[in-house]
Formats: sequence, structure tokens, C-alpha cells
Amino acid sequence: MTQQPSTPGQNSPVTVVGLGPMGLALAAALMEKGHPTTVWNRTPAKARDLVARGARLAPSAADAVAAGPLTLVCLKDYAALYEVFGSARAAAVAGRALVNLSSGTPNEAHAAASWAAERDFAYLDGAVMVPPPLVGDPGSVFLHSGPREVFDAHRDTLASLGDPRYLGADPGLAVLHNAALLGLMYATMNGFLHATALVGSAGVPAAEFADLAVNRFLPTVVDAALVEAAPDLDAGHYPGDLGTMEMNLNALEHIALTCEEQGVHAGQPRLMRDIAAQAVADGHGGSNYLAVFEVFRKAAAR
Amino acid sequence: MTQQPSTPGQNSPVTVVGLGPMGLALAAALMEKGHPTTVWNRTPAKARDLVARGARLAPSAADAVAAGPLTLVCLKDYAALYEVFGSARAAAVAGRALVNLSSGTPNEAHAAASWAAERDFAYLDGAVMVPPPLVGDPGSVFLHSGPREVFDAHRDTLASLGDPRYLGADPGLAVLHNAALLGLMYATMNGFLHATALVGSAGVPAAEFADLAVNRFLPTVVDAALVEAAPDLDAGHYPGDLGTMEMNLNALEHIALTCEEQGVHAGQPRLMRDIAAQAVADGHGGSNYLAVFEVFRKAAAR
Repeated sequence: MTQQPSTPGQNSPVTVVGLGPMGLALAAALMEKGHPTTVWNRTPAKARDLVARGARLAPSAADAVAAGPLTLVCLKDYAALYEVFGSARAAAVAGRALVNLSSGTPNEAHAAASWAAERDFAYLDGAVMVPPPLVGDPGSVFLHSGPREVFDAHRDTLASLGDPRYLGADPGLAVLHNAALLGLMYATMNGFLHATALVGSAGVPAAEFADLAVNRFLPTVVDAALVEAAPDLDAGHYPGDLGTMEMNLNALEHIALTCEEQGVHAGQPRLMRDIAAQAVADGHGGSNYLAVFEVFRKAAAR
Repeated sequence: MTQQPSTPGQNSPVTVVGLGPMGLALAAALMEKGHPTTVWNRTPAKARDLVARGARLAPSAADAVAAGPLTLVCLKDYAALYEVFGSARAAAVAGRALVNLSSGTPNEAHAAASWAAERDFAYLDGAVMVPPPLVGDPGSVFLHSGPREVFDAHRDTLASLGDPRYLGADPGLAVLHNAALLGLMYATMNGFLHATALVGSAGVPAAEFADLAVNRFLPTVVDAALVEAAPDLDAGHYPGDLGTMEMNLNALEHIALTCEEQGVHAGQPRLMRDIAAQAVADGHGGSNYLAVFEVFRKAAAR
């Protein structure tokens, strides 16, 4: 019989700082995969269940970071990072890696990377793309950005939490992707909820509409078309032979009118109509609908 | 050997009135499936290719309708329906069925059904949920509403075009579903295009982002959640135990801020933020995000 291949990182100690719902899920997943786990939280009572299951509660954030090579930080925001580690002496934690999974903007991630560099932390930014109950599933996507060597050094440990993806050296890329993907999630959810309200104005149950809209319409008609569209977006190529922005603008006018007729909130269709009208005004009347991409990306130039 | 089961409707004559891109696709699909096909268009030249392949060009709309039991109408709008058939004598076409696939609102569909009843047309409203090139594919969804017996009488013929679905006796249901599904399509496309513009502000190619966003994120994180949510929408049940509207409002503020920081169009995230803020103002701060459904559906009551 041969030995099982070794799993590097499986027994590597990990620290989790910040025990909100996501921090708790991270620590629980790490302990379940066999990592000796140290935790710290401003309110220590939050650690009670984890300690009962074998986690070590550190007396301070600096002590928690010193406990091992890798610390996952999951605080309310980036300002909390500076508060929590503000009194930590660089010497005590130099060379340790911080992976910051707190919510922030790209500028905040850049500032945090500079702050970490001044204190000799290896710094990786990150974003968790699943809700807490899915942390630990092999398919759960974690986005990371910062120095490649920091990601590579801790990749196996990060894989205990899900599917870690490296986006690039710019530390702002993870939170930027997070904002983009959440924006897509909210847009799709709002699109669905609004459409459901619209058919609901005629008494159609949501459960009946969801089957048609989400199981049939979105995957085959919408999602597939978006993936096919990506190379044209990169090329700025919007041929209107199969349908023009003018035609789509008419359709959007029509949807807004239907909402008004049915007494349903018309804000979203009106905004989408205005964006298409802007694309027409910008000279894309004969382009296909994808040219609204130019309206979105060129906002800064207006 | 047994006989193949008969295919009722396969040889049934069909008329198509209106030869824009969709009307041409309808006629071509019917001819390919073996239906004797009569066509009419205000500009007869549009029928040239179809006639070369065996279609019959009728001299008038009334004559076209008289050619067989079923006429598909695919005009620019409902007003065109009255213009085209305005001079048709009821006697010439009484008892024929019209299936109107033109774009319109529920009120327009109701008016057309009354107009048809006065002229002894059997009337079915409809909407084509695929672009012209997909007409004739067995999976292409066609939505219909109006008298059940009219749908049942012509279902097999309609199945030559795709997957005909009956939504109910209210003739406005097909165009209402059409507006709702198109609104969902535009919301999802705009969500994707905006998200792609946002990561593009840091130089990320659309093709790279599309794989993560559409192949990984939308199907597993978003679409599945929407189907699961439907019964709660029907029940008006929005428990906030796993995440509240207040938390989602913070996330949306954050996305809007990131767009401003990156110089990307912030109109969509700002509107979504305002809708969530309205839900909070309406007392849904502790509900989950689905409660924006109440903001959408209650617009009329404001």
C-alpha cells in the first residue's frame, strides 16, 4: 500500500482576527480541516463556542498574529484594521502574513497594503464570495490580490476555506471584483424581483414565474449571451446587424410604459431607458445593445 | 411495423402577416416544417425569398387571413393591426384565428381582444421569447394568452415554431410576461456590463471577468437563490436572520462609492441603494433583501 499524498498546509496554524458571522465561519472551517486555530475578537465572548471546540483565544490582536505564519482578518471595515493593530509593535509580528478579508474599496486596500509594508507584514487582500454557511465548501470562491509569492506560500491553507483565486499583484483587485460581482448580484436580484412584481400585478404567483424566468430564461437566453459577448466588449466591437440600440431603446420605453400601466415601480426600467438613450446620444444608435458598456465605463470622462 | 404517430397540424395551412425579421423567421420555420404558408406584407418585396421557396403571397391582408384557419400577426405594434385589417370585412374572415405576436402592453392586448371579438376572430395574444434565428428550435419559448380552446386548437401548429406555453385566459398575460422577462434580461445585462466596466477600470479584460461572473457566480450564487426565494415572495415572508436590509443597504452604499472612486457610472448602484433605503424607510430594515419586492409592487400605492 502507498501512503496518501501529504496535504501541505493542512496542519499549518492559522489565526482569525474578527469573529463576526464570517470570522466565526472561517475559524470553524479551519478547525474542521485540522488547522490549529488561534482567534481574537474585541468582545472575547464571541469566541466561546470555538474555544470549547479547541481554538486558542489570544489575549491581544498582536499576540494572535504572533501565534503563527498566517492571520486572516475579517473586521467590519479597513478602519477597524488600524484600530485593532494600532498598538501592535512591528517587531512582534514582522514577517507574518495578513490576509485581509474585510469589506473595502480599492483605495482602502492600497492604503492597507502600504500600512502593512511599513510594519513588515506580508499583505494579501481578499474577498469572500459566499455567505458564511458555505465557507469550507471546496467550490466556494475566495478572491485574492497582492504579491503572488504571499498567495503561493499560503495557497494550501487558504484552500481549506474553498477555492482561492489569485487576481493579480494590485492589492485593490479583490475588493474591486467583490464590488463588481455584488453589483451584478443586486442587479440580477432586482431584475428578478421587479419582473416578479410586474407579473404579480396580474396575479401571477412568484413560484410560477421563477421557474420560467430563472430556470428557463436566464441560463439559456441571457447568461450564454453574456459569455459570448465578452470578446466584443474587450474589442469595443458592437455590430448592430441583428438589432440596434434604437430598437432596444424602444423596447425599454415599452417596459417602462407597461410598469406605469400596471402601477409597478418604474425606476429601474426608466434608468435603463435613460442609459440606452445616452448611448444613442453618444453615437451608438446603430450599435448593438452591448454599447451601453461605453456609457458605463466612460462616466469619468463626462 | 407500426405506423408513425400522426402529427396533427404538420400539414395545416398557416398565414403570416407582417414580414419584418421576426415574421420572415416565422414563415421560414413553418415552411420548413411542411406547412402550406401564405404571407402578406405592406411592402410585397419582402416576401420575394419566401415565394421563391414556395410560399403564396396574398393580394391583401383580408385575403391572407381567409387562406386558412390560423394567421400569425407580427407587426410593429398594435396600432398597425387595426390599420392592416381595418378594411377587412368580418364576413370574409369570421371564425379564423388570429395569433397576435406584435409588441404591446397588457391594455393594448385587451383592446385587441375586444376588437377581434367584434369581428368574430378567435383571438390569441402572444410573445416570442427568442430572437429570429432561434425560431423553429423545439426549445424556443412562445408565450400565449387568451381563450384556452383557441390555444388548444392550434397548439400543434404553434409547436412547429418552438415550445408554446399557455399562461391563462387574460389576453394581456403574454405581453406582460414579455415585458417582465425583457426587463429581467436588460437588468442582468446591465448588471454584467456595469460590473465588467468596473473591473475594466483596473485593466481586467471582459473575457476573464465573464468566466468568473457568468459561469461561476450567476448560476450558483444568484440564480439558485432566486428560485428558492419565490415561495417567500408569494408569502410576503422576509426573515432577516441571515442578513438584513440594513446590511444590504451598507453593501450598496459601498458599491456606489467604489464606482465613484473608479470613475465608473454610478447610476445603477445609486438607484439600487435608494430602493433599499426606501425598503428600510417602509419598515423593512430588519427584513432580508427580498423585501425590496414590496417597494416594487407597491409603487401604485405611493
